[in-house]
Amino acid sequence: MTNEERIQNTSRPDGYTATSENDRSRRSSVTYFREGVARTEGYVPALQPKQADVVKLNANENPYPPSPAVMKALAELTPEQLRRYPESQGDTFREAAARVNGVTPDNIICGKGGDDLLSVALRAFCSEDRPVAYPVPTYPLYRVLASLLNCTALEIPFEADFSLPAELATTGAALTIVCNPNAPSGTWISTESLAALAETLNGILLIDEAYVDFAAADCVDLVERYDNVIVLRSLSKGYSLAGLRFGYAIAHEGVIAGLMKVKDSYNVDAIAIALATAAIEDQAYFSANIEKITTQRQLLTEQLRALGFEVSDSHTNFLQARPRTGSAAAICERLAQRGIYVRHYDTPGLKDKLRISVGTAEQNDALLAALREILTG
Amino acid sequence: MTNEERIQNTSRPDGYTATSENDRSRRSSVTYFREGVARTEGYVPALQPKQADVVKLNANENPYPPSPAVMKALAELTPEQLRRYPESQGDTFREAAARVNGVTPDNIICGKGGDDLLSVALRAFCSEDRPVAYPVPTYPLYRVLASLLNCTALEIPFEADFSLPAELATTGAALTIVCNPNAPSGTWISTESLAALAETLNGILLIDEAYVDFAAADCVDLVERYDNVIVLRSLSKGYSLAGLRFGYAIAHEGVIAGLMKVKDSYNVDAIAIALATAAIEDQAYFSANIEKITTQRQLLTEQLRALGFEVSDSHTNFLQARPRTGSAAAICERLAQRGIYVRHYDTPGLKDKLRISVGTAEQNDALLAALREILTG
Repeated sequence: MTNEERIQNTSRPDGYTATSENDRSRRSSVTYFREGVARTEGYVPALQPKQADVVKLNANENPYPPSPAVMKALAELTPEQLRRYPESQGDTFREAAARVNGVTPDNIICGKGGDDLLSVALRAFCSEDRPVAYPVPTYPLYRVLASLLNCTALEIPFEADFSLPAELATTGAALTIVCNPNAPSGTWISTESLAALAETLNGILLIDEAYVDFAAADCVDLVERYDNVIVLRSLSKGYSLAGLRFGYAIAHEGVIAGLMKVKDSYNVDAIAIALATAAIEDQAYFSANIEKITTQRQLLTEQLRALGFEVSDSHTNFLQARPRTGSAAAICERLAQRGIYVRHYDTPGLKDKLRISVGTAEQNDALLAALREILTG
Repeated sequence: MTNEERIQNTSRPDGYTATSENDRSRRSSVTYFREGVARTEGYVPALQPKQADVVKLNANENPYPPSPAVMKALAELTPEQLRRYPESQGDTFREAAARVNGVTPDNIICGKGGDDLLSVALRAFCSEDRPVAYPVPTYPLYRVLASLLNCTALEIPFEADFSLPAELATTGAALTIVCNPNAPSGTWISTESLAALAETLNGILLIDEAYVDFAAADCVDLVERYDNVIVLRSLSKGYSLAGLRFGYAIAHEGVIAGLMKVKDSYNVDAIAIALATAAIEDQAYFSANIEKITTQRQLLTEQLRALGFEVSDSHTNFLQARPRTGSAAAICERLAQRGIYVRHYDTPGLKDKLRISVGTAEQNDALLAALREILTG
C-alpha cells in the first residue's frame, strides 16, 4: 500500500487513518534546520538539583526570598487578568522602572528575562554579515545566540586584569556586548571606560548589567549621552526573582522602538508584569537585600582567603576562588558529594577556579566547614 | 571641550560626569538595525480598552474564567519557586501535555505563548535564503516574523472556499505554515488534506492549531506518521489563559531537540509552568468550557443570519459576518461607540467582514441588541 492509498483509506470519523508505522523514516529530522542551528550546541543551564535540602550556590540565585510586596501582588491576581491578553509592552512596569531609573517609559523595554532581550538584540542588530563582538571570558550565551544566527562572534580576550581590551573599539561589529560586572569573573569596568567605548563605536554597545545590583555604580546615565548604548537589567539576582523570568533594557527611545518590533507581541505576561512592578517599587526591601549579600560577600571572601584560596574582589553575588592545593574540579565534586553545589572553571582567564554564589550566613558556614574537611582530609 | 575631555573630567564618586547634552545627536538610531528590522512594521495587537465595563469581542479571548485548579495552583506558589530558576524546559508541563495528547514528553516543547514558538520555528528553519510559505489570508504575524528575518514569505492565496491551494505543496519552502482552523477566516482544512501536504513537502509543515479546541478534530496523530510535522497549541483560547502566555508544540523528538536549542534557556517561568499544568490537567473543566462556547457560537451564528448577516460556519471561537446593508467598518465603529468591541476586515478573501469573538450569552445578547439598533437606526 502506498502512502497515498493509506491516506485515502480513511476510517475514522474525522477522516484520518491512524497507523503505527512511521511513514517518514526516510529522512533525518536534523536536515530540516538551517545551518547555524544544526551546528550549534545549545546553552546548558546550571544544574538544578531536585532535592530541597541542598546548599545551592551554583546558579547565582539570591538566597533571600523576594519582597513581601511580590507575594501580596501574587495573592491579588484575578481570573480576569489571566483570561484577557496582557499589556503588550508591559506599560505598568515600564512606568515603575522609569521612575526608579530617572528615565521615561519610552526608554524602557520589558523582557522575559535578560536572555529574551539578549536574543532580541542579536536578532535586531546582527546577521550573517553583521558580527557581534565581546570580551571573553564572559556569559557563554552570547556565543550560542551568535551561532544560532550564523553570525560571526568576534571574541576579544580581556586584559590579564580584566580591563577592556583596546581592540574591542575597532572591530566594526554591529553590536558590542560588555557584561559589567562581568560573569563569570566578577570583575568591573568603570563607567568612564564604557563611555569612551560608546563614543568610539559606530554600532550598538549593550552593557549587560545582570549583576549590577551588587556593584558600586551603573551605566544608566550613559543612555542619555549616547544613542547607541543599551543597558540591560535582570530581576533574577538583586530582586530574588529568577523563577519569574523578568528583565528590562534602558536605551534611547529610537532604539527601544526598534527592539519593540523584534520582541514577541506579548513577551511578558500579566502575572510577571504585576509581580515585577511590585518588586521594583519596593526599593527599601531591595536595598536591604543587597546590603545583606554584600556583607556576606565580604565575610566569605575573607574566610576563603584565610583557608588559602586566592579570591579576587567581587562586584557581583558570586566569588571566583582558586585553591592553593587540590584542583577546583576535584573540590567541586567533593562538595557535591556533601550536598553543596558550586561551579568550577578551567578556561583561559579562569584557570582552576571555583565559582561560588554568595549564600546566607548559614549556607556560607556550611560551605566553609565542608571546605575545611576537604582540604585537611 | 571635546567628548574625550568631558569624559575624563570626572566629578561624581562613581567616576562619571553627567551632562544634559546629548553627545550623540549626530546619528539616527534607526541606522543601527539590520535591514529586515528597519523595514518591518511591527505586529499591532488588538485594542485592549482600559475600562472594565465593555463588551470585548475583538481579541478572541475566552469569555469564561480559567479552571479553579489554575487559581488553586496560583495560591499555592511559594517565594522559593520565585527565587530559584525554573525548570529550563518546563518538564512538569511536558509530562502533563504528553499524557493528554497521547505522546511522550520528548515530543513536546513549551513556549511563552504560541507566538514564542512561531518565532523559534522561523529562526530554526528559515533565513535570507530559506523561505517560509503559507496560504493567505491568515494570521498576520507570519509575515512580520519573516520580514524581521529578511526571509522571503511565499504567500499563496487560499481557494475561494478556503481549501488548500495546490501550489502550496511545490513552493520548496523550508517551512510551510497552515493555520488550522484558520484565523481570521474561521475555516477548517481536513486532517487528510494536511497529511497529503506533509507527505509531499520536503521541508517542515507547521500546523498552527491555536483555535483547534473549538474544532471537531486535530492533527496530533500526524506527528507519529510524519517527522516533518509540528502541531502548535495555545492555552490562550480554549483554556482561558491569554494573560499567562503559554503555548506548546508537538513534533518528532528530533525536531523538538533542534527547537530546544533555539528557544531561550528558560523561556517559561515557574508560575506559568505550574498554572499551565493545572489547566491542562483539568480536562473536565476544559470540555465544559468548550461546550459552552460552541453552543453560544451556534446560537450567535443563527441570530446574526436572522439579522441578515452572511455568516459562514466557524470552527473557532469567532465568527466572520458580512452585513447585507452598511459597511462592516461603519458597523464596527458604531458598536465601539456603544462600548462593544469587534474587528473588521476588508481584504482579499475577507471583503467587508466583521470578526466577532463568541462571548457569554449576556455579551452576545448585548451585541445583537446593539446591531438591531444600528441596522434599523
